Amino acid sequence: MTGTEQRHIVKSYEQELDQLRDLLARMGGLVEAQTSHAVNAMLFRDAGDAAAAMEGDAAVDALEREIEQLAIRLLALRSPLAQDLRGIVAALKISGDLERIGDYAANVAKRSMRIEAVNPAMASGGMRSLARLVQESLKLAVDAVNNNDASIALEVWRADRAVDDLYTAMFRELITYMMEDPRSITASTHMLFIAKNLERIGDHATNIAERVHYAVTGDMLPAERPRGQTPVRDGE
Amino acid sequence: MTGTEQRHIVKSYEQELDQLRDLLARMGGLVEAQTSHAVNAMLFRDAGDAAAAMEGDAAVDALEREIEQLAIRLLALRSPLAQDLRGIVAALKISGDLERIGDYAANVAKRSMRIEAVNPAMASGGMRSLARLVQESLKLAVDAVNNNDASIALEVWRADRAVDDLYTAMFRELITYMMEDPRSITASTHMLFIAKNLERIGDHATNIAERVHYAVTGDMLPAERPRGQTPVRDGE
Repeated sequence: MTGTEQRHIVKSYEQELDQLRDLLARMGGLVEAQTSHAVNAMLFRDAGDAAAAMEGDAAVDALEREIEQLAIRLLALRSPLAQDLRGIVAALKISGDLERIGDYAANVAKRSMRIEAVNPAMASGGMRSLARLVQESLKLAVDAVNNNDASIALEVWRADRAVDDLYTAMFRELITYMMEDPRSITASTHMLFIAKNLERIGDHATNIAERVHYAVTGDMLPAERPRGQTPVRDGE
Repeated sequence: MTGTEQRHIVKSYEQELDQLRDLLARMGGLVEAQTSHAVNAMLFRDAGDAAAAMEGDAAVDALEREIEQLAIRLLALRSPLAQDLRGIVAALKISGDLERIGDYAANVAKRSMRIEAVNPAMASGGMRSLARLVQESLKLAVDAVNNNDASIALEVWRADRAVDDLYTAMFRELITYMMEDPRSITASTHMLFIAKNLERIGDHATNIAERVHYAVTGDMLPAERPRGQTPVRDGE
């Protein structure tokens, strides 16, 4: 191999690594926007936001496939080592988490528009707090991906615990609405699933922060997150 | 490098690929057992089955980490190509799907034991059919992984559609129970989430079958599965 060929390969490797980071950043940005549209669809019953959240899904799915194919190309053409290799594997896993978040956001938007009457839970303080906190966690996680920042994992962990508590409170609130007014049952079950979807988005944001931590440091965080013993908590 | 060293490396590469397949098969078997325990916990309110489904989670999570670390080692030590490479990437993605299925199964078991009174939906024909069909899909998907069988993807796709229809019917049935008897609301919301979790297990089984298809053939299946246009269907 001549020096020129070698430089060419080295350069295209770096370019492809950059391209992978870029695709992941784009996917993160799209999913953040989708989630923000979904939350607006819920809080303000905005049909435009709902449509935007739902339409975002196709682009997010396409990016997941593109990331997988680029990762496979990178792994096939080069033997990336240590942090590069962990970064590529993390990109594969993180794109899976982002794809799930996009699905949950689309589902929140779709359910929000299916609720005919305004449900008291829709813009309740609890739901607003839950939505805001989940959006913050997602933003932190996406920033961690973009900046290769391992230190954010602990912050997202703490937020995850608060998200769980807010979700549990919403669950109880919604059960109460249903019991007090059986006519609200259909809308309230949609709200239950919306709250659950938001909680799941927070959970996937936590996964992402954990994966960045591992990709950067090479150390896996303990399996148990600092919260309850099991994935279902009281009231869930 | 001497001939002996080379043979040694070649052998350990094959051994490590076998080990990866073995870990994935073990993970698939555990998750199938977890799901089966969870379904028994729901249908027969069996505390032993519920405990088994919940306790299975730790081993499943540990296997996901082990698979990731072995995959990284394989990618770092060798430059696997074509089908081997796609197989390793598929193992990373499939272990993520299996881990989610394990979580859903544990959640089904936990919710089943939290329901104090027998709920009419618990052992209804619809719930039994849903559970049976999801278990069949999961079995097909795990078999596809173990046998590297691309042909099963289409079969699992068809089952996924039937799972969606059964889930939608259960959703309506449960809303009706809640409206007819508000005392059943708490139990029925748990049943709603149980039905949803089962539907999600079916969905992840479909993901797995699609990934095996891609790993074996190198062809990605179309993004749209043969079902409704969007991930939320009527009644969901």
